[in-house]
Amino acid sequence: GEAGPVFSSDDGFFTFAPAGRLLVDYTATRGSSDPGRNINGSRVTDARLGAKGTMGALGYYVQVKFTDGKAGLRQAYLSYSTPLLGHHAVFYLGNFFKDLGIDGSSAAANLPFMSRDAATMVGEPVNRYYGLGMQMRMYGDNWHYSLSVSGDAPGNASNGSTSDSVVYLTRAHWNPIKTDAGFMHVGAWYYYEHLSPGVASINDHPSIALDFNENLDVKAGAVPDPTQDHATGYELGGVYRSFWAVGEYARRSVDSASVGTARRHGSSLSAGWMITGEKPGFSSRGGNWQWVRVNHPVTSGGWGAFELATRVDHYDYRGGAPFGGDGQSYTLGVNWYLNDWSRVMFNYIRWHTDNRIGDTGSDWGHSFGLRTQLMF
Amino acid sequence: GEAGPVFSSDDGFFTFAPAGRLLVDYTATRGSSDPGRNINGSRVTDARLGAKGTMGALGYYVQVKFTDGKAGLRQAYLSYSTPLLGHHAVFYLGNFFKDLGIDGSSAAANLPFMSRDAATMVGEPVNRYYGLGMQMRMYGDNWHYSLSVSGDAPGNASNGSTSDSVVYLTRAHWNPIKTDAGFMHVGAWYYYEHLSPGVASINDHPSIALDFNENLDVKAGAVPDPTQDHATGYELGGVYRSFWAVGEYARRSVDSASVGTARRHGSSLSAGWMITGEKPGFSSRGGNWQWVRVNHPVTSGGWGAFELATRVDHYDYRGGAPFGGDGQSYTLGVNWYLNDWSRVMFNYIRWHTDNRIGDTGSDWGHSFGLRTQLMF
Amino acid sequence: GEAGPVFSSDDGFFTFAPAGRLLVDYTATRGSSDPGRNINGSRVTDARLGAKGTMGALGYYVQVKFTDGKAGLRQAYLSYSTPLLGHHAVFYLGNFFKDLGIDGSSAAANLPFMSRDAATMVGEPVNRYYGLGMQMRMYGDNWHYSLSVSGDAPGNASNGSTSDSVVYLTRAHWNPIKTDAGFMHVGAWYYYEHLSPGVASINDHPSIALDFNENLDVKAGAVPDPTQDHATGYELGGVYRSFWAVGEYARRSVDSASVGTARRHGSSLSAGWMITGEKPGFSSRGGNWQWVRVNHPVTSGGWGAFELATRVDHYDYRGGAPFGGDGQSYTLGVNWYLNDWSRVMFNYIRWHTDNRIGDTGSDWGHSFGLRTQLMF
Repeated sequence: GEAGPVFSSDDGFFTFAPAGRLLVDYTATRGSSDPGRNINGSRVTDARLGAKGTMGALGYYVQVKFTDGKAGLRQAYLSYSTPLLGHHAVFYLGNFFKDLGIDGSSAAANLPFMSRDAATMVGEPVNRYYGLGMQMRMYGDNWHYSLSVSGDAPGNASNGSTSDSVVYLTRAHWNPIKTDAGFMHVGAWYYYEHLSPGVASINDHPSIALDFNENLDVKAGAVPDPTQDHATGYELGGVYRSFWAVGEYARRSVDSASVGTARRHGSSLSAGWMITGEKPGFSSRGGNWQWVRVNHPVTSGGWGAFELATRVDHYDYRGGAPFGGDGQSYTLGVNWYLNDWSRVMFNYIRWHTDNRIGDTGSDWGHSFGLRTQLMF
Repeated sequence: GEAGPVFSSDDGFFTFAPAGRLLVDYTATRGSSDPGRNINGSRVTDARLGAKGTMGALGYYVQVKFTDGKAGLRQAYLSYSTPLLGHHAVFYLGNFFKDLGIDGSSAAANLPFMSRDAATMVGEPVNRYYGLGMQMRMYGDNWHYSLSVSGDAPGNASNGSTSDSVVYLTRAHWNPIKTDAGFMHVGAWYYYEHLSPGVASINDHPSIALDFNENLDVKAGAVPDPTQDHATGYELGGVYRSFWAVGEYARRSVDSASVGTARRHGSSLSAGWMITGEKPGFSSRGGNWQWVRVNHPVTSGGWGAFELATRVDHYDYRGGAPFGGDGQSYTLGVNWYLNDWSRVMFNYIRWHTDNRIGDTGSDWGHSFGLRTQLMF
Repeated sequence: GEAGPVFSSDDGFFTFAPAGRLLVDYTATRGSSDPGRNINGSRVTDARLGAKGTMGALGYYVQVKFTDGKAGLRQAYLSYSTPLLGHHAVFYLGNFFKDLGIDGSSAAANLPFMSRDAATMVGEPVNRYYGLGMQMRMYGDNWHYSLSVSGDAPGNASNGSTSDSVVYLTRAHWNPIKTDAGFMHVGAWYYYEHLSPGVASINDHPSIALDFNENLDVKAGAVPDPTQDHATGYELGGVYRSFWAVGEYARRSVDSASVGTARRHGSSLSAGWMITGEKPGFSSRGGNWQWVRVNHPVTSGGWGAFELATRVDHYDYRGGAPFGGDGQSYTLGVNWYLNDWSRVMFNYIRWHTDNRIGDTGSDWGHSFGLRTQLMF
C-alpha cells in the first residue's frame, strides 16, 4: 500500500517513487509479578524514508529506518527482472529482505498482527531479516521458489575486521488449490549459516508482547563460541473468501565449540476474518502478507475495512543449551484499514514466560498495543 | 516557505511534497574572561530531509534532522482535518511539534532571530519541543486553542525500560484587535509533566548566545530525583503594517523528591521592522512565526526583503534549587530574505552570565552569528 | 549519471531532483603473512539519499550518507551561479566537496577504480574531502580555478568546544591542447590548514586495497600536538579518443609542537581504455572524473560499455615523523557500464606494505573487489 506518487517517463521506461513508512505504537503491560514489566509508553516503532525506481528491467530500492536516534539501512539493492526457464524471475544484489517463511518474508507493516509470529522470531538467523548479498526469486502460476546467499547486514559491528557470517537460504511454496474463492498454501524453508569468528556469542531474547517493553521477553542463555547454525521452517495456510488461517513452525540448532548444540523451536497458529468482506492480505504469489485493498475508504466517505484476528504463539528455548526459557502468548487483534495506505491496529496479548535467567520463574501478564500506521 | 515542488493528483485528493531544510551558521564569541568561551566556528545547525502529503482529509509528515553525525526523527505524524463545533480542527497522532508559546510553536527556520527566546528556553519541559502522542488544534477567526498529551520523544534513552514521562499541554490565543493594518495578540499556555522514573535528574543549561558554543550557557544546578514539573507562559504581541512587537514570559517549577522545588523563569521583549515594507512573519492564525512573503525576490532581479529586529532576554534559575545562575542577552538582528525560501541572518549579541557552577561569577562578552538558510 | 527524475517548473525557473546513490562491494584478501588481513566480506560502501534543486541562479543540495548504522551529512550547500570577469563562476556556501586534485575532486562513484589514488589519500587534510565554509569555482574554455575556506566538517567531535580547524585551498588546471579528439591536462593545488586546539594528534592509515578490510593499511605513526599542515599536488593527464592517462603527485607536511615536522608523499600513475569506444569520464572542464555516457545500454538491448584500466600507487610516510611506513599497490580494473546510471566494477590489487607499527615488516598480498553501483 502506497500513498505517495509514482513518477514515470512517457514510455514507462523510467519510474521513480518515494518510499516512506510510519508506525506509531502505544503499549501497556499489567499483571506481571515483576514491577519492571508493568510499564507503558509510546514509541515510533518504524519511520522510513527512501526511494525506488526502475530503468527498464533494472530496478533499485534504497530505504533507511530512523528510530531511537539511529539510521539503519534497510532495502538497498539493485534488481533485474527476466524470464527464466519459462517463468518470471527477479535477481537482487545488495541488502534485501530474506525469504524466511510467511511472516519472515513480509514487511512488518503488512502483517495482520503488531509483531511477527513465534516461528519466525525463534527461527531467524544471527544476520536477521536483511542480508547483504544475492537473491533469486522465481514465480510460477501457483508456486514460487527462492535462493539467496548473504553476508553481514550493513552496520554489523564485526564488518571489516573479520570475515562475514554467511547465510545460505532457500524457500518454496506451492498452492495445491487455487480458485477464485481462495487458495491453500504449503511451504517450507531451510538455511545454513556459517558464523564469522567475530560472533562471540548468540544471545536471543525475543519480545513476547510487542517490541516496546525491553523487560518483557523470553530469554535463552547466551550460547558461547558458536560456529554455525541452521534452521528449518514449515508453513500451512489458506484463504477462503474473507477468511484466512496460517500455521508456521520453525526449529533452529546452534552449534557451539564449547557447550554443544542449542536447540529451539517456535510455533504459531493464527486465523482471521475481514468483517467488511475484503480479500485478506495473505498472498498466493509470494506466500506472504501484502496490503489489503479497502472497498470503502474512510477518505472517500466510507467506513474503511475491519479485520478480526487471533493467534497462538509458543516459544521454546529449553533444548540443549543452558538456561533456556519458554513462553506462550495468545493474541486478539482488531485492525481498521482506513484506506489503502493507513490503518489502526489493536492487539490484546495474554502471555506467559518461564525464564531461567534474568527475571526467572513462571510469570503471567497481559499487554495491549495500539498502532497507527501509514505507508507512502 | 518552500522551494520544492508539491505534486498533486488531478482531483487534488492526493498531494505529496519533499520537505527539506538547511541552516548553516558561523559563530564567534569574544570578550569573555574565560578563554574557553572565546571560540569561533562554522556549523550545519539544521539539515533535514523528509516528505509530507495528504489523502483527502488525512495527512502525514515524516522529517529527519541530520546534524553532528546523528539522525533524529522530527515531524513524524498522521493528521486529520475536520470541522468541529463549527470551527476548523486538526488532530495529530505521532511525533509532533508542541504548541509552547509564540517562539516555542514556531519552526526555528521561521524565527526572526537565530535562536528561540528566553521564555521558551527556560519554560520547555524535559520532553522538549517534540512529543510523541496526540494533539488537537482548533482555529477560529481571531483565536486558536490546542490540547495535547505526549510521552517521550523518539530516541529518548529511557524508552522501553521504564514508563514514559507524559506532558499535558494546553494553549490559547486571542486577537482582540484584527484589521487589515494589523492585529493584537494575547495568549497563554500551561503544561503539567509527570516524570518517568527513568529521569534521574534535570540538568538545564540553555545557550545564551547561539547554539554552536558549548562553553557559553546559563547554568542551573542539576535537580536530582525530579518527580514532576509544570510551567505557565504568557504572551503579548502585535503587528502594525511593517512593524511587530512580542513579549513572552514563562515560569517553571520542578519538584524534586530530595531537594524541594526548583523555580526558574525567563522573559523576552522583542520588536522588529520590515524595512522593505513586507508584512512581518508573526501570524494571527496560529500565534506563531511563519515565513515572510518577499515583494521583490533576488532571484527575480529585486533586492529581496530586509528586516531589522532587536530582543532583550532574561534567564533566571536562582529560585529554590541550589547553584542556579542567571543571565541576560541583548540581540540586534538584520535579516535579508532573498526570496520565499532562503535568507541570510546576522545577529549581534551582548550577553552576561552569572553562573554558580562551572565557569562561575559575572562574565560579560559579545557574540555574533551569520546564518544562511533554505527551506524546500 | 542520474536515473532519477528532474522536476521542473514550466518556465524552468524551479528545478528539483532526488539525489541517491548505492555502492555494494564484495572484497577478499589473500596471501598476507598476517591471517587477520586474509578476510573477506560484503559491504554497502555508500548509500545516499538527498535532494537538489535550483531557483533561478540559486541552487541547493542536501545529501546524507547512510553506512555502518550512521548518518553522515555530505553535500549540504547553497550555490549561486553568476558571470564573473567575463567567465562563469559558481559560489558555494555550506558543506561542499573540496577541489583537491583529480581524484580528490571526483565523486567516488565516478572514479575509474574502486578507491581514490595514493596522491589524494596521502595529501588530504585533517578535515578530509568535505568542508563547511565557502568556495568559488570559475570556469574558462580550457581552464578552471577554485578557492575555498572551510572549517570542520559537520559531525566533527571537536565542534562547539574549541575553535574550528580551517583549510585554505586553491587549485587550477589548464588544457594546453584541447581538440575534438582529446585534450591534455596540467594542474596543481595547494592548501594550508590551521589546526584547532581540539586536534590532539594526527593518525593517518589509508587503506591500500579497498575500504572494507580494516586490518590492511599503510600506517603512519601518530603525530602528536599538531599545529598546522600544508600540502601541494601536481596533476598531468590527458584523453585521446577512447584512451586516457593520469598522473598525480602530492606531498604533505605536518608540523608538530613536540616532534618536529612529519613529511609524507603519494604518487599515482594510471591509464585506461574504453574498449567499446566511448569517451572516457575524465573531464576537461573541471579536471575531474564524470560519468561515462554509454553508447549501447544494456537496458535498451545493448552490451553496455567496457573499460580496462590499470594503476600504480605509492604511499610514503617515512619522512620526519617516527614509525612511518610505506606501501605500493598495482591495480587492474575492468568496468562494465550497464547504462548511464549503473555499473559493475572488478579490481584486482597486488599490494605491499612495510609498516613500523601494528602488523610490522614487509608484507605482500593480493585483494580483489567486486562493486555494483547505481546513482539516481
